[in-house]
Amino acid sequence: MLTNVRKLAFGSPLPTAEEVHQRLTKVQALAVFSSDALSSVAYATEEILLVLVVAGVAALGLSLPIALAIAGLLAIVATSYYQTIHGYPSGGGAYIVAHDNLGMWPGLTAAAALLIDYVLTVAVSITAGVAAITSAFPALLAFRVGLCLLAVALITWANLRGVRESGTLFAIPTYGFVFIFLALIVVGLARLISGTLSPLPAQTPAVAEGSIQALTVFLILRAFASGCTALTGIEAISNGIPAFQKPEADNAGKTLIAMATLLVGMFLGITFLARSLGVVPVEQETVVSQIGKQVFGYGPFYLALQATTALILVLAANTSFADFPRLSSILARDRYLPRQLANLGDRLVFANGIVALAFLASTLVVIFGGQTHRLIPLYALGVFLAFTLSQAGMVRHWQRESGQGWHWKATLNGLGAVATGVVLLVIVTTKFAHGGWIVVLLIPGFIWIFSAVKHHYVTVAEQLSLEGLRPEEWEGLASQRGHKVVVPVSGMHRGTLAALRFARSLSKDVTALVVDVEPEVTARVREKWPVWGHDVPLVVLESSYRSTIGPLLAYLDEVDRREPESGLAVVVLPEFVPARWWQDLLHNQTARLIKNALIYRRGQEGKDRVIIDVPYHLRR
Amino acid sequence: MLTNVRKLAFGSPLPTAEEVHQRLTKVQALAVFSSDALSSVAYATEEILLVLVVAGVAALGLSLPIALAIAGLLAIVATSYYQTIHGYPSGGGAYIVAHDNLGMWPGLTAAAALLIDYVLTVAVSITAGVAAITSAFPALLAFRVGLCLLAVALITWANLRGVRESGTLFAIPTYGFVFIFLALIVVGLARLISGTLSPLPAQTPAVAEGSIQALTVFLILRAFASGCTALTGIEAISNGIPAFQKPEADNAGKTLIAMATLLVGMFLGITFLARSLGVVPVEQETVVSQIGKQVFGYGPFYLALQATTALILVLAANTSFADFPRLSSILARDRYLPRQLANLGDRLVFANGIVALAFLASTLVVIFGGQTHRLIPLYALGVFLAFTLSQAGMVRHWQRESGQGWHWKATLNGLGAVATGVVLLVIVTTKFAHGGWIVVLLIPGFIWIFSAVKHHYVTVAEQLSLEGLRPEEWEGLASQRGHKVVVPVSGMHRGTLAALRFARSLSKDVTALVVDVEPEVTARVREKWPVWGHDVPLVVLESSYRSTIGPLLAYLDEVDRREPESGLAVVVLPEFVPARWWQDLLHNQTARLIKNALIYRRGQEGKDRVIIDVPYHLRR
Repeated sequence: MLTNVRKLAFGSPLPTAEEVHQRLTKVQALAVFSSDALSSVAYATEEILLVLVVAGVAALGLSLPIALAIAGLLAIVATSYYQTIHGYPSGGGAYIVAHDNLGMWPGLTAAAALLIDYVLTVAVSITAGVAAITSAFPALLAFRVGLCLLAVALITWANLRGVRESGTLFAIPTYGFVFIFLALIVVGLARLISGTLSPLPAQTPAVAEGSIQALTVFLILRAFASGCTALTGIEAISNGIPAFQKPEADNAGKTLIAMATLLVGMFLGITFLARSLGVVPVEQETVVSQIGKQVFGYGPFYLALQATTALILVLAANTSFADFPRLSSILARDRYLPRQLANLGDRLVFANGIVALAFLASTLVVIFGGQTHRLIPLYALGVFLAFTLSQAGMVRHWQRESGQGWHWKATLNGLGAVATGVVLLVIVTTKFAHGGWIVVLLIPGFIWIFSAVKHHYVTVAEQLSLEGLRPEEWEGLASQRGHKVVVPVSGMHRGTLAALRFARSLSKDVTALVVDVEPEVTARVREKWPVWGHDVPLVVLESSYRSTIGPLLAYLDEVDRREPESGLAVVVLPEFVPARWWQDLLHNQTARLIKNALIYRRGQEGKDRVIIDVPYHLRR
Repeated sequence: MLTNVRKLAFGSPLPTAEEVHQRLTKVQALAVFSSDALSSVAYATEEILLVLVVAGVAALGLSLPIALAIAGLLAIVATSYYQTIHGYPSGGGAYIVAHDNLGMWPGLTAAAALLIDYVLTVAVSITAGVAAITSAFPALLAFRVGLCLLAVALITWANLRGVRESGTLFAIPTYGFVFIFLALIVVGLARLISGTLSPLPAQTPAVAEGSIQALTVFLILRAFASGCTALTGIEAISNGIPAFQKPEADNAGKTLIAMATLLVGMFLGITFLARSLGVVPVEQETVVSQIGKQVFGYGPFYLALQATTALILVLAANTSFADFPRLSSILARDRYLPRQLANLGDRLVFANGIVALAFLASTLVVIFGGQTHRLIPLYALGVFLAFTLSQAGMVRHWQRESGQGWHWKATLNGLGAVATGVVLLVIVTTKFAHGGWIVVLLIPGFIWIFSAVKHHYVTVAEQLSLEGLRPEEWEGLASQRGHKVVVPVSGMHRGTLAALRFARSLSKDVTALVVDVEPEVTARVREKWPVWGHDVPLVVLESSYRSTIGPLLAYLDEVDRREPESGLAVVVLPEFVPARWWQDLLHNQTARLIKNALIYRRGQEGKDRVIIDVPYHLRR
């Protein structure tokens, strides 16, 4: 039954042999890998304006020079990643590049930064996507947290089923978004030049973080830092090189150039339009929506703009649902994270990583009330840390390889490392007080977890190892007989009889126990025992805290103490199993609680206890 | 470790003997039982205005006559409940009264209605309480869903620890609220008469549900139905009679009169002030907050008003955290709900009911975006259904008892039943389209669940009964020997050896199984088997879906089919247990998954399988 529900929701299990990788053309690859990067133009400009507006509406004019600076940075980073693509044609994620070239700790730092940013990518993209919808339908604004959670749930479901990185599926929303966004810019510019587009009426900004502040260098740098979210996702292509058609590295490089060009054009275009129209950031409507309404008017084009914006942001979140489980499975294989994260599920996806990501992102959405601009101070910090470590690793890589012209290559990556490193410092400094500190604390926290997990696995392997044992020692014990057996009894029924029968087949030393939680039940057991209990003695245990488990464990401990010489203490548990799984919810599952308590408690004097389950199946 | 965390958070377990009931004075009892009823004045007026405003600001004048009608209804219901108190001095909840006098189905209907309304009381009270806070601090408005969830979590925690219905603890916020609310009305009226209080400036209502509609009778009835939420909680005293000092029924009756008087006074007073000041309901501020600001000015009195409003609403939610678990435990004792709901936890509270309530209320809060006025159409429907059934039951009760003057008593309760029955019809009709249908569907759904659960328990008891069995049948099987034993092996380590040793002590017919999920692991087991496996044969099972469990079950089924004559199939599972509970998260827990799969699957030919756990405890 449960299996059928599962099949219906997530599809039938796939055999391991079906794990194949589709090769993508450049056009498909651009759609698959660029949604994260391109979608950031939906909110990056707004985040710059939201910082500047604190210094008054006049300060908004600075958005254009800031956007130009970010475009320059983007060019440097893209060039640097172009090199990475050719240096690591098998896929050069920041963790791999930093681990290979700089060592374990820088590798783990990059991994921690990336995991955090994948979670933030989901939260930021989903909240921004929902903002695109609520801008068009303000009545939905009140439900934004619920809508965000619904969107995360849908993406999670799709990923658990296993979405193939299907070029065609991704192409429609991505190219749709690019097309309509470019149309917005072109039509907007044309109408500006022809003088048919008037600026928006003056609005009071709703999201002023206090009264007007002075326009300090710090504030400008903070606006720059907020805008740097435009660069997130630019590394996606270098992670996915093996998915390209041959020659992989060449095609990936060309795709990267196309993506960077589009990104720069769209980002500068929308920022220029926002300035020319005098857009002021407000709470209930996004900047892109304001521009869209003014340029297109409220109609099909405007609605298409909002719809494709929401869709590409969902795709951007979806990218993290591929990246986070993949990186955490690599870390789990290297024993830095729980090994469950490396399990390929029924549908050939890393299901545990997907669920973990969904949970973390949903928590962020609820805590931050579904508001993009409150999440932004936490965002991009991890990405730039990973950028810096990965570029620095590439410098080392070229130096080690010492191939033709390695000096040039190392210099280019070095320039990237220095640029992203400086921006990282700017981001940490300006965002620290607004929430960046959370990420600054989380990164060492993650690294600590990574090393604690590794330590645990190493310790367990040592303890379980057969090294130093002699087979003869174990041989001798096989003849061990005369186990001491106890049977906890919850009432006189057929399940109890089945357990007693099995217990008596094991040993002559059997004792039945009843814990006196409900006096009527105890009395009934006592009354029927002479008939059904055969020769097995019945012991009644008192319970003053209504607990079945406490007195049971106390009794076992006492037996251990009294008879340290006796054999293994074996506990036989009668357990009746309902005919359908959901009926389990209607029973106390005391047997299961006892099992858990017994497994975790080592017996006195280091004796382990064996637990035996005798199921009695109900038929209706 | 886990036990310690639990103790710290929820306190040490309490012995059953400590379950005593505190007796309350009338003053204390008013505080304990009236928070739910009195707190509704914080939102009832607003809900009337929110409906009327749809017909334009001019229609708001109708709020006063509507409030007067509700006050009349309240007088009838209070009189009727005064009778119930004297008829059921041991506590007369709607479920008990309806079940006793009208039979099972009306009893279950009342129970379903009450359970649903307890959940809604939590959701409505918490969202209204958070609205009181966000009215004073609008910056928090964006976080209202998060704040609501936090408040539910805090109340849940307090109830899991076990809050005694401490009169003193409850008295401060309740009387504080009554005092400041009455002060608001008195000061407001005095300032109105002296002419120092000016009406609020005209505002456009933010929550118009569409454009202006005509002021129909239907709309007026809907406003009346929304305002009837003021009556919720009035039944609380009749449920809690045993908590009063002697003579219980007399004291309870007097307390009920005091509560009804206060409720009528506060409700009419605030509605009159709202009219006189021309308050218009808006999205971001409550009606009471608007009046408070105008009467007191933004200062300590206003803030005290908002704070005590929020507090009493939290107490109102807390009332449901006593009522819901109590009612569901009664239903569970009568076998209409899972019996876990009847378990008294470590702290002498019905922990499962508390957690269930918290979960359901939180879900409602998220779905309805933390907005009181969206929840209101669902609310009060259940309460009035329970009112009607309980009053009708009382009519029957007096008739059966035929005591002195039973005609009078029956007539009074009959009047109550008719009045609440008519209002119930009004509520269902006017709220149906706005969300009431959800409750109308849920009530039969709950009743269906109740009877399905009952049916299940009856069936299980029949199947487990020893009736018709002869003890000799079971006696003979005790000597059964020669079990067929299999040991699934996940790798060669000390845990495997311990399991093998125990298996060999049970039977001579032992087979070890390894499922070939990771080829390297299988190869290592095969290599070491000759040394460590002794005489036990090793079977390797193929797995094409990366599943350990599937091939295992298939093998067991095949053995059953091949050797239908052989003894019970016993599965011995090696399970290594980490030194600390959290380390469990780092392991695959395959043993646990196998156990679950085996327990739920009956063997071929109806043979049950016994599962044996051999734990191997790690020390670090």
